[in-house]
Amino acid sequence: MRNLLFTIRYVGSHYHGWQIQQNAHTVQAEFQAALVKILGHCPDVKGCSRTDTGVHANMYCISLQTGSTVACERFVAALNMHLPYDIGVCGCTEVAEDFHARYSCTAKRYVYYIWNAPVRNPFYHRMALHYRRPLDEKMMDRQARDFLGTHDYTAFCSAGSKVADTVRTVTEARVAREGDVVTFTVTADGFLYHMVRIMMGTLLRITEGKIQESAIPSIIASKNRDNAGPTVGPDGLYLDHVFYGGG
Amino acid sequence: MRNLLFTIRYVGSHYHGWQIQQNAHTVQAEFQAALVKILGHCPDVKGCSRTDTGVHANMYCISLQTGSTVACERFVAALNMHLPYDIGVCGCTEVAEDFHARYSCTAKRYVYYIWNAPVRNPFYHRMALHYRRPLDEKMMDRQARDFLGTHDYTAFCSAGSKVADTVRTVTEARVAREGDVVTFTVTADGFLYHMVRIMMGTLLRITEGKIQESAIPSIIASKNRDNAGPTVGPDGLYLDHVFYGGG
Repeated sequence: MRNLLFTIRYVGSHYHGWQIQQNAHTVQAEFQAALVKILGHCPDVKGCSRTDTGVHANMYCISLQTGSTVACERFVAALNMHLPYDIGVCGCTEVAEDFHARYSCTAKRYVYYIWNAPVRNPFYHRMALHYRRPLDEKMMDRQARDFLGTHDYTAFCSAGSKVADTVRTVTEARVAREGDVVTFTVTADGFLYHMVRIMMGTLLRITEGKIQESAIPSIIASKNRDNAGPTVGPDGLYLDHVFYGGG
Repeated sequence: MRNLLFTIRYVGSHYHGWQIQQNAHTVQAEFQAALVKILGHCPDVKGCSRTDTGVHANMYCISLQTGSTVACERFVAALNMHLPYDIGVCGCTEVAEDFHARYSCTAKRYVYYIWNAPVRNPFYHRMALHYRRPLDEKMMDRQARDFLGTHDYTAFCSAGSKVADTVRTVTEARVAREGDVVTFTVTADGFLYHMVRIMMGTLLRITEGKIQESAIPSIIASKNRDNAGPTVGPDGLYLDHVFYGGG
């Protein structure tokens, strides 16, 4: 058996996230349907994470074991032929037997995009959050640094999550502007349910003066979801990079 | 009567260009329908140029005369409420009585986007040309400089055009790369039918070795469409800026 790692990109607007569910259009279902067309059957497919409805992926990783001898390059071409236009396979490599797209992952980077202008931009429809008032990205950047480090992120986790361990290590958290686009980039060894979207909502509340400046450490310490900002929409969220050991 | 200048953006994928036509979905038809909802009637609307089916606009300008006293800012908000998601109004300003979106225009800038990687990118579906083999953007940039100046561009005009004067002045022509995205930027006082797309096709043929290096001046001089490269698809083409006197 070969263990293969596939890297894909997808526009999440029309999907209920990665993970297969009954009566829902998911990326995994499309990926498996394409595999069946190529292999005649569907191997057990492991995705690097669930992603929420509407969330996009610049990089998403999938591992699977197969007896097929199809060369990696041909696999990529064949999958791209069978997948819909909003999912694209970037690459395929043979990996060690014990590699697992989810468990071998050492860190993930997310980027949240905001179109920050008084009027909407048709090019960012369902691809970014539209925020009309001018954002102070430098202030947001300073606040974002307070997310760095190893903390119990219970305050930044939506109800409905059943994770036992809520401690995560955030290694990158910054806000930047390029023209009318403001981005929040965050890297961690793992993320709780809605964590990035609540972090983003909290940064927005701080710029609005509805949450005090420098309040992030005390919100984290409170372990109380009610103290953090709202969960912003999924349209602006992109899984940007998945890290495995070497990078 | 007030003379108003509207600046809009649109994703052209689902439109047969700007100009109203029978039995075709056009940007002008949508814009006029929105005006009727606001004003109760449709003023005579002047667009800055035709654009082809599938071509996008980061900036497109429209002028119209109206007796309406609706404030510019409110006009923008009302139009955005009535326009579909793929057309967005950016601004509205009152201009001199003799201003005309098309005739007052002094220059236009187009940008052609190429996604240059072996595999397709779902985020550029219908938003860029997909070109698989690596492009030498530095060589393309050197070649593009040969488009600069005042020339008779008959060789870069598709049949079917009925323009009498085929002389245009190109003031900017350059190729650049950012990661896997290669762009061709061209500014001129006006463009012939398919001119940018034939220029792009010619640059690609040169990099492919199918048209000789440094052949652009002789192709221009030949005034023969057959000597230039193919008309590449509209998906990668964006009307990027419209210049009026001051800029």
